Amino acid sequence: MDKYEKIIGMAKRRGFLWNSFELYGGTAGFYDYGPLGAMLKRRIEDIWRKMYVIEEGFYEIETPTIGIAAIFDASGHTRGFSDPMVVCSKCDHSFRADHLIEGIVETPDALPASEIKRLIDEHGIKCPQCGGTGTFGDVSSFNLMFKTTIGPGAERVGYLRPETAQGMFVDFEHLFRFYREKLPFGVTQIGKAYRNEISPRQGVIRLREFTQAEAEIFINPTEKNHPKFSMIEDTVLRYYPASHQRVSHPAHEDDGGIIELTTRDAVDRAIVAHEFLAYHLVLTHLFLVRVGIDPARMRFRQHQPDEMAHYAVDCWDAEVLTDRFGWVEIVGIADRTDYDLSSHAEHSKKDLSVLIEYDTPKQVERIAVKPDMGVIGPLYKGNAGKVLAALKGLGEEDLRGDEIKIEIDGEIVPIPRDLVEYETVIEEVRGERVIPHVIEPSFGIDRIIYAALEHSFSEELVAGVTRNVLHLPAEVAPVQVAVLPLLTRDELITPSLAIAETLRENGVFVSYDDSGTIGRRYRRNDEIGTPFSVTIDYDTLGDDTVTIRDRDSMAQIRMPIGELAETLRAMIRHGFSDAATRHNQIF
Amino acid sequence: MDKYEKIIGMAKRRGFLWNSFELYGGTAGFYDYGPLGAMLKRRIEDIWRKMYVIEEGFYEIETPTIGIAAIFDASGHTRGFSDPMVVCSKCDHSFRADHLIEGIVETPDALPASEIKRLIDEHGIKCPQCGGTGTFGDVSSFNLMFKTTIGPGAERVGYLRPETAQGMFVDFEHLFRFYREKLPFGVTQIGKAYRNEISPRQGVIRLREFTQAEAEIFINPTEKNHPKFSMIEDTVLRYYPASHQRVSHPAHEDDGGIIELTTRDAVDRAIVAHEFLAYHLVLTHLFLVRVGIDPARMRFRQHQPDEMAHYAVDCWDAEVLTDRFGWVEIVGIADRTDYDLSSHAEHSKKDLSVLIEYDTPKQVERIAVKPDMGVIGPLYKGNAGKVLAALKGLGEEDLRGDEIKIEIDGEIVPIPRDLVEYETVIEEVRGERVIPHVIEPSFGIDRIIYAALEHSFSEELVAGVTRNVLHLPAEVAPVQVAVLPLLTRDELITPSLAIAETLRENGVFVSYDDSGTIGRRYRRNDEIGTPFSVTIDYDTLGDDTVTIRDRDSMAQIRMPIGELAETLRAMIRHGFSDAATRHNQIF
Repeated sequence: MDKYEKIIGMAKRRGFLWNSFELYGGTAGFYDYGPLGAMLKRRIEDIWRKMYVIEEGFYEIETPTIGIAAIFDASGHTRGFSDPMVVCSKCDHSFRADHLIEGIVETPDALPASEIKRLIDEHGIKCPQCGGTGTFGDVSSFNLMFKTTIGPGAERVGYLRPETAQGMFVDFEHLFRFYREKLPFGVTQIGKAYRNEISPRQGVIRLREFTQAEAEIFINPTEKNHPKFSMIEDTVLRYYPASHQRVSHPAHEDDGGIIELTTRDAVDRAIVAHEFLAYHLVLTHLFLVRVGIDPARMRFRQHQPDEMAHYAVDCWDAEVLTDRFGWVEIVGIADRTDYDLSSHAEHSKKDLSVLIEYDTPKQVERIAVKPDMGVIGPLYKGNAGKVLAALKGLGEEDLRGDEIKIEIDGEIVPIPRDLVEYETVIEEVRGERVIPHVIEPSFGIDRIIYAALEHSFSEELVAGVTRNVLHLPAEVAPVQVAVLPLLTRDELITPSLAIAETLRENGVFVSYDDSGTIGRRYRRNDEIGTPFSVTIDYDTLGDDTVTIRDRDSMAQIRMPIGELAETLRAMIRHGFSDAATRHNQIF
Repeated sequence: MDKYEKIIGMAKRRGFLWNSFELYGGTAGFYDYGPLGAMLKRRIEDIWRKMYVIEEGFYEIETPTIGIAAIFDASGHTRGFSDPMVVCSKCDHSFRADHLIEGIVETPDALPASEIKRLIDEHGIKCPQCGGTGTFGDVSSFNLMFKTTIGPGAERVGYLRPETAQGMFVDFEHLFRFYREKLPFGVTQIGKAYRNEISPRQGVIRLREFTQAEAEIFINPTEKNHPKFSMIEDTVLRYYPASHQRVSHPAHEDDGGIIELTTRDAVDRAIVAHEFLAYHLVLTHLFLVRVGIDPARMRFRQHQPDEMAHYAVDCWDAEVLTDRFGWVEIVGIADRTDYDLSSHAEHSKKDLSVLIEYDTPKQVERIAVKPDMGVIGPLYKGNAGKVLAALKGLGEEDLRGDEIKIEIDGEIVPIPRDLVEYETVIEEVRGERVIPHVIEPSFGIDRIIYAALEHSFSEELVAGVTRNVLHLPAEVAPVQVAVLPLLTRDELITPSLAIAETLRENGVFVSYDDSGTIGRRYRRNDEIGTPFSVTIDYDTLGDDTVTIRDRDSMAQIRMPIGELAETLRAMIRHGFSDAATRHNQIF
C-alpha cells in the first residue's frame, strides 16, 4: 500500500473524500468533500481570502460557471484547449493518445498528432481495455470543455468554464471603473472550473470538476517593480530555473537543479523576470506553508520557453513532491502580458486600453493642417467633409511634396498644393493609452488539499503501536479541539458537554466524543489532525481543572476550565508549546 | 423608475451586480457579483453557516455541480423538471407556453399542455417576438436541466444539478456512518444550482445559474418533535395557511389571510404539521431578519395540497414582498418524508433503511421451521439447498395444511408433510428498520440578496436633498467602516491611512476614500450601506481623537484613536447607539 492509498483510505473512512455518485457506481474524475474534507477546504480557502482579498486588497468577484462561446473564442479555449485522442475500433473505448506511448518517448505530450499515430502503429500498441492491436484510428483532437446549450434550441452554445480567470477579464471595464481608473489593481475569484478529461487516471490529482482560486492583477506594463518588494526580498525559495532542467519537459524529475536563493538574488540574477512576479512567488510560498505544505518537498519550477504560452514573459509553477505522482503542479504564477485584454478587445471590438497619466503632462510637437476651406468647400461640394478629414489625417511627409494625394472612398484624389497650409504646433499630452499587463497566480485548491494531507501524514511508532497522525497546522485542521470525558460515565459526560458548548460559543470548532477507550479516542483524533484534546477526569469534579493534550508532542498540561477557551485560541494561533509556556508564566 | 430599477441601477454603478458577458452583449439569466455584491453574498453565506453548520451542528459537504443521469432518474428530474414550451413557426423564437396566456386564466401554470394550446388558439395569441398569429405549434415539454456529456463520445450523459440536495441524498450511507449511525443528523451544502429557463424575464429573481444553501435533516419518522422547541415556541411568525388563500395558486396576492401566531399555537392548532418543521420556520425567520429582510414584508405561505409534491406532508415558503414582483418565494421548508431515500434505494438497489433501536429489546414470536434434512438431502440432491431455503421462508399458514408447497426456480414443488416440523420460538428484536424522513430548508441565496437590498433601500430627504441609503445590518454590509480624511490634504491623509491599516489588522473591513467633499463621501458610503464612517480632522492632529458617524441616524461621537477598533467591533455587533452609550459609560 503506497502513501496515496493510505491517505485516500483514511480520507474515505473518516469523511474527508468520497467518490462521487458511488451509490450508482461512480464516475472517474469526480470527488465529494465529506464533512471533514469540506471543513478543511473552507479553512484553506479562508486563509487564501485573508491573504489575497483582505491583506493584498484584491476584491473577490463571482461570475457564472457557464460561459458563452464568444468568451472562449477570444481566450483561445475553443481552438486550443484539447488533448490528442484515439478510439479503439474494436471496443470503442477512448484514450489519451499520448498516454499510450509513455515510456517510448520522453515527452509524449509535446508531439504532434501524426507523430503519436506513427509511434502507436510502429510499436503495435495494444488497446489497454480489450487488448486488441492495430485497432486505433487516427489521432483526433478532443476539446476539454464541457459543452451545453443555453435555453431551448441549439442556437446558444455554452461551456463550463475551464478557468475562473475569463470571468474577471470580461469584467475588466467594470472593475477598472470600480477601482477609480487607477493601476495597479487586483481581483480574485474562488470557484469551480471544469476539464472534461478523456479518461482521468490520477484520482484526486486529475479531476473533471475542481476548485480554483485565481487572482488577476492588472498592472502598468512599464511598472513591474513591486511596492512591497523590500518586505519579502530576503525570503529564500527553492527555485528550479528552466536552464537547470535536463529535458525540455522534465515530467516529475528533479535532477539536482534546485537552487536556494533570496528573492532579491533571484531578481538581480534575472532568474525571475521581475519584482512583481517574484513577490507573488513568495506570497504563494507563504500561503502553501501556512496551509500545511512541507517547504522541503516544494519547489518553484520555471516553464521552458517551448512550454510557456507564446505570449507569456515568464511563468513558474509551484510544485510539490508526492509519493505516487512525483512532482505535481499545484499553483501557476505567470506574467500573461496584454494577451488576455488585447484578445478580448479584438473579439469584442471594444477599446480596453487605459490612460496612464504622465507625472507631468508632456509637450509634444504635432503637425496641424490648415486647409483653405473657402476654396475646398465649393470645389469638392458634397465630398468637402471627407476631403477635410483626410487632409487632417496627413503627416508631415505627405504634405512635403508638390502635390498632395488623399484617398476618398478608395479613390486617390490629388489636391492642389496651394489649397493646404500646415504648421508645427506644440501640444500638451496628459498620458498614453496602454493595455494593462496581467500577473496571474492560479491555485488548484483540490491538489493543495491532497498535498497538505500527504505532507502532514505520518505513521509513528509509539510504545510498539503505530500511531497515524495528520500534522496539519491548527489553523486548517477541520476539528480544532476534541472534548473527551476520560470514561463514559454520566458524572464526566455532563461537565464535558458543558465545556464543549462553552468552547463553541467562544468560536472554537469542537467535537465531542465519548465512545471507546481514551487511548482510542486520542488516536482517532490524531488520525484526522485534531491539534488539541481536552480531557475531563475525576480531578475535574474536585478542582475544575482539565488536561489539554498536544497532538504532535503528545505532551499534556493541566489548567483551570476558566482559562481554557483563551488558551486554546492562543494555541490555535501560536502552537501548543508557545501558548503553554505563556500560560504557565501568567498563571 | 420603480424600485427594482433604482436598486439594480445602483447595484450596477457601485459594483454589486453586473450583467454577465456584457462585453459580448450579455445573456438573460446570468449575473455577476461585483466586488461589493460578492462581499455581501459571502457575509450572508457566513451567517447561514454560523446558524446551520456551527450552531445546529449540520456539517457542510461539497459535491459536484455535474451529476450523472442515474441520480436525476431517481430524483424525478429527468421526467418532471420541465416547463411547457411553444415555438413560433415564423420567427423560431421559443416561449414559456403558460406565460402567453397570463391574464386569460388565473393559474396558467397549473394547466395541462393541451389546455394551454387550446387557449392560445382560441384567443389568437400573437408571437411577442415577431407579432405573427396562428404560428404556434403544439405545446411541448422542455426539460430545464442543462445537459452535457462526460468524457468523449455520447455514452455518458451528465446534467448540471437542479438543486444541491441530491448530492446529499446520494451520500446518505457515508453520512450515516460519519454520524455513528444515529438519527437525527443534518448535513448542509452551499453551492451552485442550475435551471435552463426557456426565456427568463425577471432579472435577478429568475436566474439560470444561482446559489442554494440547503440543509437535509434525516430524522426518525416517528419522532417529529424537536428537542429545542421550547427555546423558540414563543416566537411569533406571520403565517399564511393554505386554507386562508383565496385561489388555489395565489400568485403574489395577500388577501388579508396572514395571521400572526406563536410557534406553539401554530403547532397546537395543527396549522404547521409538527414541531420539527415549525422549529425550522423559526430558524429561517431569524436568519432572514438577521441578513436584512424586513419582517413586516415577509410571510410564511403554506403550499396548497395540489401544489405540494405528492409525497410531502407539509411545505411552507418564506416569501418577501417586493415592489415590482409582488410576493416572491425565497426559502422553501418541507417535510419530504422518505421519498428521496426510498427513491434512491429503489433505483440503486441498495438498502438505505436504518435500524432504530428500541429502548429495550422486544420479545417477538416467530415460526421456526425444522426440516428433516436426513431425508430431504438424499431426496432432492442438488436442489436440497434451495428446498431448505424455501422451507425456512414459509409462514405459519403455509405450514398448516396437509401438503406443503414451495416454489423452486419458478416451479411448484410439493413437499410431504412429515418431512417438515415447525415450532414457535421467542426472539429478541433490537429495533426496527425504517427509511428516515427528511426535513429540508432550502434557501435561494440570490433572491435573498436582492430582497435584502430592496428592503434596506430608502430615499430620505435631508435638508432638501435626497439621501439614498442601504440600511443593511452592519454584520452583512460589504464595507464595514469608511475611513475619511476631512479634507484631501497630506497632513490628514497620512494619519487616515495609518488608522485604516490598524483597523484592517484588527479584522475590520475598511475602505479608504479621499476624493470629493466629505458630504459626497458620506453619501457614497450611505448608498452602499457602509454602517460607520470614521473622520479624521484637524483636531485629530492635536488630541488623537476622531469622529464616528452612524449611517442610519447620522449621529456622530468623538473618541480617542486607541479605543476605535474595539468600539467599531462592538458597533458592528450591537449597533451604534448601544455601543456609543457603553463607550461613554466606560470612558
